[in-house]
Amino acid sequence: MKEVEVALLGFGTVGSGTFSLLQTNAELIENRLGVRPHVSKIYVRNPQKYTDVTLPEGTVFTDSVDDVLGDETIRIVVEVMGGTTFARECVEKALKAGKNVVTANKDLLAEAGPYLLDLASKNGVDLRYEASVLGGIPIIRTLYDSLGGNKISELVGIMNGTTNFILSKMTEDGSNYDEVLAEAQALGYAEADPTADVEGLDAARKLAILSSIAFNRRIFFEDVHVEGITKIDSTDIAFGKEFGYTIKLLGIAKETKKGLSLNVHPAFISQQHPLAAVRGSYNALYVKGNGIDDAMFYGRGAGSLPTGSSVVSDIMEVTKNEAAQATGKLTPFFYPDKNLYASGKIESSYYMRLLVDNSTGVLAKVASKLAEQRISVQAVIQRNEDAQTATLAIVTSICPRSYILNVINAFNKLRVVKEVGSVIRIMAD
Amino acid sequence: MKEVEVALLGFGTVGSGTFSLLQTNAELIENRLGVRPHVSKIYVRNPQKYTDVTLPEGTVFTDSVDDVLGDETIRIVVEVMGGTTFARECVEKALKAGKNVVTANKDLLAEAGPYLLDLASKNGVDLRYEASVLGGIPIIRTLYDSLGGNKISELVGIMNGTTNFILSKMTEDGSNYDEVLAEAQALGYAEADPTADVEGLDAARKLAILSSIAFNRRIFFEDVHVEGITKIDSTDIAFGKEFGYTIKLLGIAKETKKGLSLNVHPAFISQQHPLAAVRGSYNALYVKGNGIDDAMFYGRGAGSLPTGSSVVSDIMEVTKNEAAQATGKLTPFFYPDKNLYASGKIESSYYMRLLVDNSTGVLAKVASKLAEQRISVQAVIQRNEDAQTATLAIVTSICPRSYILNVINAFNKLRVVKEVGSVIRIMAD
Repeated sequence: MKEVEVALLGFGTVGSGTFSLLQTNAELIENRLGVRPHVSKIYVRNPQKYTDVTLPEGTVFTDSVDDVLGDETIRIVVEVMGGTTFARECVEKALKAGKNVVTANKDLLAEAGPYLLDLASKNGVDLRYEASVLGGIPIIRTLYDSLGGNKISELVGIMNGTTNFILSKMTEDGSNYDEVLAEAQALGYAEADPTADVEGLDAARKLAILSSIAFNRRIFFEDVHVEGITKIDSTDIAFGKEFGYTIKLLGIAKETKKGLSLNVHPAFISQQHPLAAVRGSYNALYVKGNGIDDAMFYGRGAGSLPTGSSVVSDIMEVTKNEAAQATGKLTPFFYPDKNLYASGKIESSYYMRLLVDNSTGVLAKVASKLAEQRISVQAVIQRNEDAQTATLAIVTSICPRSYILNVINAFNKLRVVKEVGSVIRIMAD
Repeated sequence: MKEVEVALLGFGTVGSGTFSLLQTNAELIENRLGVRPHVSKIYVRNPQKYTDVTLPEGTVFTDSVDDVLGDETIRIVVEVMGGTTFARECVEKALKAGKNVVTANKDLLAEAGPYLLDLASKNGVDLRYEASVLGGIPIIRTLYDSLGGNKISELVGIMNGTTNFILSKMTEDGSNYDEVLAEAQALGYAEADPTADVEGLDAARKLAILSSIAFNRRIFFEDVHVEGITKIDSTDIAFGKEFGYTIKLLGIAKETKKGLSLNVHPAFISQQHPLAAVRGSYNALYVKGNGIDDAMFYGRGAGSLPTGSSVVSDIMEVTKNEAAQATGKLTPFFYPDKNLYASGKIESSYYMRLLVDNSTGVLAKVASKLAEQRISVQAVIQRNEDAQTATLAIVTSICPRSYILNVINAFNKLRVVKEVGSVIRIMAD
């Protein structure tokens, strides 16, 4: 059977998962392809670390990246090292040397994706990156190919397993953010420094990559407006439940007549929405388009084998293209103008929680401030905390964010309002 | 820009949705592909029916199918007529004439899919059929390409919108099957003769098509064991809720060491399972594989534009392949042996509802019959109906179907059991 030579750069979580799947499912993969992808070299910085790994005959570790990039037999370079400096250097060199590249590197794609796609196209080779977002969920190929006939109007994703685990746990157990974060860290679901996850940065990188494809724009990480989950309180989650909502950290890209808005923030969604059933460390992307209406893609957003599955699917596709001498056929197409829409202008329904005086007439005063700002009220729950204090949980109708900022100002000036506790967006269905 | 000529056979729901999307999104599709798919001819039996349809210049209706199949400029024939006789004749002729075929024809694929794939391969052309199952949900390409590196162990699908609408409505409103069926018929969600839907035949055809791909076997409709939803009672749905279950009509294909089992039947699933959140007329497929672990694909299972979206994605792929002169590269691969496993042998947990005498010691008698058949009980709810009669709702542990058939026999001989009301499988997580 015809063989296509493959090299891995890196042998960490994703690299070893990829290699393991290629070995375990070798026969199936060959039968399905009619061609055999064969890993001949694996670049690692320090081969001594892997002396306990037994490679099959015909596969070797090497500590020289030039030994890979200068090897003319190698047609596919699989970058699974991570980082953006050395990895970018290697990917660019490989593309310029006329080698196809498969990468799982989210940071690199969010920083330089459109540029690298152009470079691949110029060199007549493939650049594939299914594993760079949402782990085992096949979403990049889906957006390119399966949904290619659609004008996409909206992407809404649960794109970070750590924060979804934390919010699910807070919702199910009523526990507090700090407790659950500590538990997630103990279980290895959250890093010692959880910033990239809990502040929404990781989700923003994924949203940038997916939006570039779905909306044909050169979108980068810095184009996304980001807000994390560190201020989410279990009190709000409980009130949300009573209103029929579940809290999620969402990445939302929305095309409107005014432009494309790109946001990552916590939001309440209806308990009936398919994203509400995405629990624990699972990820999902919900897509609206003018053909499909709506669809959702759900699965494991991380992990050695799920992410390896996505890398292998790319290796298989490029192997097939190589065998058919049809690489470099993925024409990158981007509109020249990003046409972004300031997130502050997005209209939304809002949830607000106020601590107020527990006295007659307070609700009337609060309601009149809302009315002054032309904000309608959809639902209110009042809960008396003690003789002095009550909590008001309010759901507003859809209005611009500026109205909400104005009413918060007005509340802060109102003597009967002790504190504006939280303000959380509600996602429209 | 380079053009690839396309012809439609049929202009009904799917055909007109396909044409409409190709028109509406023409610019986007061309930019994404770098090639222009152009519909030059549309075959319809009676062009007089379409005098109110204004076609763009360069596209004509024709009532001669030979005018399409004999036209050498046409590279892609899109079969959206339905039926298995004339449609099969046209598809075979087109493939033999070296034309690529895109079809949305589930019945044709379930009857002759593997044969037609071989024929396409022999003639060096593509045969694509994304729209033949699950409407707008991109699942066929996903199984072929995105999950190609996985050994798939299980497919579980909600594959029929009519029955999911009926069961969702029965669950949400507590209404009876007959009432909801009548409502579904009035709304156009169910046919006047609903047999193909409610008896599970439609779902079985889809399961056959998807299993052929996922498990690389030549699977046909008759290989699937089928049971419909007509006996489902709202009483059972209510008891199921108390046990934490939701009822769904599931298509289940499962690979075990003993072989592949293929079943369509109603089943209870945990309310926490992602399929439980698939409501109304939506469809979804849940997939387990040795790389991805698990994933789910959700969306519109029918409709003009969603199904059209899948047809267009196939047209786009074949157009790209034509332009790259890389058609016919999808090698059909099937194991020679189907290796099917009799559905009667599948082990499962079961729900049973019995009408019994309302008297002391009845539960003991029922429980001892279960124990005699080595069936453990996981949960029981007893509800007294009147002075004479009580209902027992029982959830068993996992056991072979034969044990359950034996215990039903034993119950039928037991004087205190008035009736074995229902027996419903419970899907393991």
